Amino acid sequence: MLELSRFSPIILKIGGSVITNKGAELEARMDIISSIADQIREANPKNLVIVHGGGSFGHPLAQRYAIRDGFKDESQITGFAETHHVMTVLNGLFMDALIWRGIPAVSINPLSCVLTRNGRIQCFEMTQLKEFLKMGFLPVLHGDTVLDTELGFTVLSGDQLVSYLAIQLKAEKILIGVDVDGLYERDPKLSTGAKMHERLSLEELKKVHESLKESSTAADVTGGMRSKIAELMPAIEHGVPALIFNATKPKYVYKAIKGERIKGTLIEKE
Amino acid sequence: MLELSRFSPIILKIGGSVITNKGAELEARMDIISSIADQIREANPKNLVIVHGGGSFGHPLAQRYAIRDGFKDESQITGFAETHHVMTVLNGLFMDALIWRGIPAVSINPLSCVLTRNGRIQCFEMTQLKEFLKMGFLPVLHGDTVLDTELGFTVLSGDQLVSYLAIQLKAEKILIGVDVDGLYERDPKLSTGAKMHERLSLEELKKVHESLKESSTAADVTGGMRSKIAELMPAIEHGVPALIFNATKPKYVYKAIKGERIKGTLIEKE
Repeated sequence: MLELSRFSPIILKIGGSVITNKGAELEARMDIISSIADQIREANPKNLVIVHGGGSFGHPLAQRYAIRDGFKDESQITGFAETHHVMTVLNGLFMDALIWRGIPAVSINPLSCVLTRNGRIQCFEMTQLKEFLKMGFLPVLHGDTVLDTELGFTVLSGDQLVSYLAIQLKAEKILIGVDVDGLYERDPKLSTGAKMHERLSLEELKKVHESLKESSTAADVTGGMRSKIAELMPAIEHGVPALIFNATKPKYVYKAIKGERIKGTLIEKE
Repeated sequence: MLELSRFSPIILKIGGSVITNKGAELEARMDIISSIADQIREANPKNLVIVHGGGSFGHPLAQRYAIRDGFKDESQITGFAETHHVMTVLNGLFMDALIWRGIPAVSINPLSCVLTRNGRIQCFEMTQLKEFLKMGFLPVLHGDTVLDTELGFTVLSGDQLVSYLAIQLKAEKILIGVDVDGLYERDPKLSTGAKMHERLSLEELKKVHESLKESSTAADVTGGMRSKIAELMPAIEHGVPALIFNATKPKYVYKAIKGERIKGTLIEKE
């Protein structure tokens, strides 16, 4: 095996609200998944890691069985298994779209290689991921149910994975694809006319974080935009810039990968 | 996390020829998969690890792209990704059947946690697998494409996994479900009237191995019965008995798990 040299991948997060219909349990938005796969094929990136969320696949089940809170009783065991399974089903739909377009994507399941401690990544065997990246593959990860050394098990959010990977892999940039245009002063789904931030420094982001209430409009066991921001902060602190953009808009994923100018919220350290 | 205590699981291998139609690429035998899932639910084992093969999902693609021989040129990259993907598709069908029957099965993908060296398992992060087993889950693994420290990548057979797991987990027994009744003097698919071995010691098994020619009747990138035997030997040497039986016969998987007497080839050290 070659020495693991330094490289600067792009970390692309595709939110669960982008690729699933959060209003209907286990409903994937196949048109969006196909469009995103088309855009990735066209962009043909050489150093991309994708992380997708759980949306209406993982979240309702994780919530029903209180997986995030950890192991409390036996009844959660099948619930944990079900939650992980539906995440692999969603991942399979996403992988299908990539693979049959000739994209050399390999799915890496967090459940198989991550351990958390009180919900935070404690141990992540990344040898495979780094090697795949170096060989020209496109690793795909997802929010998942994982074992936890204190809680027994828990939910690992895609957002925590994104920040962790960005720091560990010294990423060039983070692209956070969501179903709104960027980061707003207030939840744009609840407040019409809410103003969007176009650029934020880390200091400004911290203030936004403090001002935001928990205001997710859909069930999200991993928290809404507020927890998304909190997860992002360590990566920004490490100097990795992040762009929050609307991944449902035509060609926005392509343009984001290519570094073309699109509407969104850019967050940088200074 | 609790201390990893000693336990003696049963390792059940379900051959690719059992759950897929080896004559038709990407054709799963859903009736058999459903029947096996029914039997596992009925047996309700508390310490079972399942490993399934690739059959007409993994093998034709792995062969087409010469994945087993390792990385030779760029054209294999998408082939490797495709091969892994179809294995996760087959695994998904199998997991579906288990999960929707309320079996707490969790899929552990070898690609995410195994590294081989010249085709042999060099490093297998088993913390998750052991912990899942102890918590009452049913871990499911499968033959897979994996990274190899010498070859770049290769194919990891379900049979190698079975023997490795049996030794590492100090298994009670190995159950090898195939689509013939046991181990024959000659390939029963080619020679009518071939005599089946009912019981073999390790010494006898070695003689059978030497006498067998490579005579698999279908494409099998991981070798036919001969390589299956070779993989079994280290586990038998470690004192784990193995039963080769026909997993397509009614109730045979159930009876094998329960330790009820069924037709097959029993292999023991002495």
